[in-house]
Amino acid sequence: MSNENVYSGRIAALRVLMARDGISAVIIPQADPHLGEYLASHWQVRRWLSGFGGSAGDLVVTASAAALWTDSRYFIQAAQQLEGSGVELMKDGLPDTPSITAWLGNELLNGQTVGVDGLLFPDTQFCQLAAELAAKGLNVNGHYDVVDELWADRPALPDSKIFVHDEKYAGESARSKIAKIMDEARAAGADAVLVSALDEIAWTLNIRCDDVRHTPVATAFLYLRDKDSILFIEDSKLTDQTRVYLASQGVVCQPYGKMMDYIKSLPEAEKVMVDKNKTSWAINDILGNRAIDSGISTAARLKSVKNDTQIACLRRAMVRDGVAIVKAMMEIEHRMAENIHTTELDVVDIFHKYRAQGELYKDESFGTIAGYGPHGAIVHYEPTAESNATLRPEGLLLIDSGAQYVDGTTDITRTICLGQPTAHEKHDFTLVLKGHITLAQAVFPAGTRGAQLDVLARQFLWQHGLNYLHGTGHGVGFFLSVHEGPHSIRLNNVEAPLLPGSITSNEPGVYIENDHGIRCENLVLCRKERDSEFGDFLSFETLTLCPFDRKLVDTTLLSDSDLRWLNNYHAMVAERLLPALDTEEQRQWLIRQTAPITR
Amino acid sequence: MSNENVYSGRIAALRVLMARDGISAVIIPQADPHLGEYLASHWQVRRWLSGFGGSAGDLVVTASAAALWTDSRYFIQAAQQLEGSGVELMKDGLPDTPSITAWLGNELLNGQTVGVDGLLFPDTQFCQLAAELAAKGLNVNGHYDVVDELWADRPALPDSKIFVHDEKYAGESARSKIAKIMDEARAAGADAVLVSALDEIAWTLNIRCDDVRHTPVATAFLYLRDKDSILFIEDSKLTDQTRVYLASQGVVCQPYGKMMDYIKSLPEAEKVMVDKNKTSWAINDILGNRAIDSGISTAARLKSVKNDTQIACLRRAMVRDGVAIVKAMMEIEHRMAENIHTTELDVVDIFHKYRAQGELYKDESFGTIAGYGPHGAIVHYEPTAESNATLRPEGLLLIDSGAQYVDGTTDITRTICLGQPTAHEKHDFTLVLKGHITLAQAVFPAGTRGAQLDVLARQFLWQHGLNYLHGTGHGVGFFLSVHEGPHSIRLNNVEAPLLPGSITSNEPGVYIENDHGIRCENLVLCRKERDSEFGDFLSFETLTLCPFDRKLVDTTLLSDSDLRWLNNYHAMVAERLLPALDTEEQRQWLIRQTAPITR
Repeated sequence: MSNENVYSGRIAALRVLMARDGISAVIIPQADPHLGEYLASHWQVRRWLSGFGGSAGDLVVTASAAALWTDSRYFIQAAQQLEGSGVELMKDGLPDTPSITAWLGNELLNGQTVGVDGLLFPDTQFCQLAAELAAKGLNVNGHYDVVDELWADRPALPDSKIFVHDEKYAGESARSKIAKIMDEARAAGADAVLVSALDEIAWTLNIRCDDVRHTPVATAFLYLRDKDSILFIEDSKLTDQTRVYLASQGVVCQPYGKMMDYIKSLPEAEKVMVDKNKTSWAINDILGNRAIDSGISTAARLKSVKNDTQIACLRRAMVRDGVAIVKAMMEIEHRMAENIHTTELDVVDIFHKYRAQGELYKDESFGTIAGYGPHGAIVHYEPTAESNATLRPEGLLLIDSGAQYVDGTTDITRTICLGQPTAHEKHDFTLVLKGHITLAQAVFPAGTRGAQLDVLARQFLWQHGLNYLHGTGHGVGFFLSVHEGPHSIRLNNVEAPLLPGSITSNEPGVYIENDHGIRCENLVLCRKERDSEFGDFLSFETLTLCPFDRKLVDTTLLSDSDLRWLNNYHAMVAERLLPALDTEEQRQWLIRQTAPITR
Repeated sequence: MSNENVYSGRIAALRVLMARDGISAVIIPQADPHLGEYLASHWQVRRWLSGFGGSAGDLVVTASAAALWTDSRYFIQAAQQLEGSGVELMKDGLPDTPSITAWLGNELLNGQTVGVDGLLFPDTQFCQLAAELAAKGLNVNGHYDVVDELWADRPALPDSKIFVHDEKYAGESARSKIAKIMDEARAAGADAVLVSALDEIAWTLNIRCDDVRHTPVATAFLYLRDKDSILFIEDSKLTDQTRVYLASQGVVCQPYGKMMDYIKSLPEAEKVMVDKNKTSWAINDILGNRAIDSGISTAARLKSVKNDTQIACLRRAMVRDGVAIVKAMMEIEHRMAENIHTTELDVVDIFHKYRAQGELYKDESFGTIAGYGPHGAIVHYEPTAESNATLRPEGLLLIDSGAQYVDGTTDITRTICLGQPTAHEKHDFTLVLKGHITLAQAVFPAGTRGAQLDVLARQFLWQHGLNYLHGTGHGVGFFLSVHEGPHSIRLNNVEAPLLPGSITSNEPGVYIENDHGIRCENLVLCRKERDSEFGDFLSFETLTLCPFDRKLVDTTLLSDSDLRWLNNYHAMVAERLLPALDTEEQRQWLIRQTAPITR
């Protein structure tokens, strides 16, 4: 059966059910009821229906048309994967692309109904969608879910066992975290807190699991109360040991599927705190007036601030991560020198091989991006069997990768030159590095938002008419999501300030289409720098340990202060990694790579 | 009669009326029905009742208590002026200061009524106030206005004649501006636009007036329609000539007092665009469902973008302004050298004297700030007969001043040293100047908001634990308000981007209590710098022409690029001002002040 028949056939089957049910259109987002970044296969409905496998994109199906909205990262991939499915690609963000609601306004007739599964939309987003559709004379059915009926061999819910994340890594007991969350909830007039976000649940309870690739979370809902909080989780995911552990933290378990019935049965007077941006409409619809919107949840805010134990752990994980990358870089260099055939996928494997040798390694923290030459300019490029390029001893290789260690999550990008760099490559690299260094050295008052600092990393690129269209920094979890909030460093304003103890990436880049891509990424710890009559000032400490490619540095573009930072950073990398390397050859390589750079 | 009796007596009289009317508290803001920055004396009710003369602060009176909320700029002044009035000073922004609504919640009983004049509160602010009071069980009467009854010799409404701002300065006819505003209004489904903001009215119609100090606006409301727009204005303010002019632009006049009746009589179907942040609740209450909120108004946005005529005019005004300041600086220097007794108020007079000699001069654009030594550290210090300090040949003098010329509005701050500067003074000055220079040289993509660039001016101060608690830049009108929106450059996020053609101040500073204050301020024009594959990039061109005090520059803190900017700027100042100076002595002085600075 060709692709054409698989996906167009599935969509045709959906249309039969829609016609039966009086539904004129359905919107199928890339989401699960926990509204996180990565989905278990059970919830990969959009991919199953359309064939498109990207991490972002909404499918809309009417009786006669189907279309998929996705952003520029996926224009090429989506065009390929949608071929023959009958699904039209809608390029989000281009001026001529209609919004989903505008498109539906044209496709449907006044009074027709759009069906969605209200568990897959944040309350805030659903309300906006419903208002926009209402303005076009369309109704919304927020309880339309025919996936089980349609998808005969739908994968089951994930059934991995949960495990305890030891307090020697987490640095604080679940009981203590629950008490802090409940203190804030009570102060806001709530009796309980309902948590849908899987990383917030894992953090709060110090539990982890393998339900989802790259992010060690467990599929569950958490209902926090002063006593006997309830974890709604499949029984098969528990063991006697984890059940006893949870009980010891004041948490009882009920089946995952019972959560909705449970909140339906709550007394009208019980006030439940939810983060409406991270809790589905279907849940809020049941809670009704019982719901109090927390805005950014207490768990999300506290989770972003790492305690001393976590920071000490992460420093150790960074040494193992740095050692692995040094070994990987050396192997790539060796293969180039010896003319050994090497592809982008080989690079992915090499990075994985050395990381997996490290203590406490569990997983990659996301799919490794290894982009050679023009592929480096595709911001979220992941090599596939079809795209896999062969490296030659020239040009730039961009590698963005990370690991999940039990004692911390890493995320690092290095751009290396496989031969002798051109002046253009050095120029662009050094502008990116200069932005990275300036941000790394920032000092700023407590309360500063990431959007205020973003320009520090971009200013030198802007002076040359260059830019990058992604954020400069994202929060990073601790043996949890490699992307976490609430803070970030990016162009658009996010009110959450940079808090001491938070971990953020520092990753400016530049991407020249059909030529090269450059990104320099380290993780930084926000810490108190000093106080003064003007209040507390904060700064960043760089945690990632790995040399930058010195061949690519154009010292004429660096100030004395920039160069001093780079040499100090390299000296620190050498000091921390040398004792952890295995061989004299490795040590000599690192000493060469971290030797002071002079003008 | 002592102060005590004047103000406490007036408040007592107010309480008699409140008791009669069943009103338990009134809130009296520093505002008029046009919600702008400067008030005609007719609306100086808060000052008349409390004695406090600052430009910001709300008075609240209950049967037994009275309190005034104002910000840190006015803590000292308010404490002095309120003495004996029985009004308690509430220091806004301090952690222990209750909000007005929290305070009223404590002072009043459930079910009592707070009276306000709903013409003096923006709709958005009134709605928030009412919601907060309702949460405390208090009612709001939005139509409570007993000022006429209370204030026997209340000044009349301003009655200055309006005059036409010639198109040779304005660069665009009123008719053309009205057409642009109405195009946007119709596209948004509105039939008309109601404008309350006086500077927007003056800009739209190319009229000016002397109703208010420092800002050449006329007291009026403007109701824009496709044909026969209506200017609600006192008849006494018109002449045959201005009436004919307005008619020629499609504008008819009605008495100022008829506006409310007029909008009451509008058909229910007539949709009226208003900026709810700049239009009072009382007006919105009458418009009801007829009102469409524009957000930032079309007039405000278009007004911020100066056309080529205005820019050419402003360049000429800057020469006159620069010449006046050179002469003023020389006179101050001369008086110091000759030991001539000179005070802060003398400095104000000297600046005024030379500016007033310039062509097309109309007014100062705000009260001159001349702060010597520790007075410089009081951000909005204006010398008074009581505070007036005598200058000595040492220490720093901060002068922030500006002028209203018919061909443009200026605003400049220079900090000069009256003797030999200390290392501390040079250090602080140079950090401020370095931030000023870095912002002046910024290049940024179209769409960038001021909050993204703010850090460029602050970063060097932050590195030393220093900061300033005011914005870095405000928009500047054209022969209009010296402070205008919608854009700004400041810590807090403002969504309005920096548009090509807009004028903004660049004014970082630092204030060391009881020691010195430093600010370096020029006006900059936003302009297109270049385009690239990453879109349009913008930059600033500095328009203000006046040397910085070279004695205060510590070249060791400046980069080569900083120093190059400073020398290029000084060269430009010399080139433009030298031909406009009167005497050889002036020219020699300027040549010395603008000579290249070397390390």
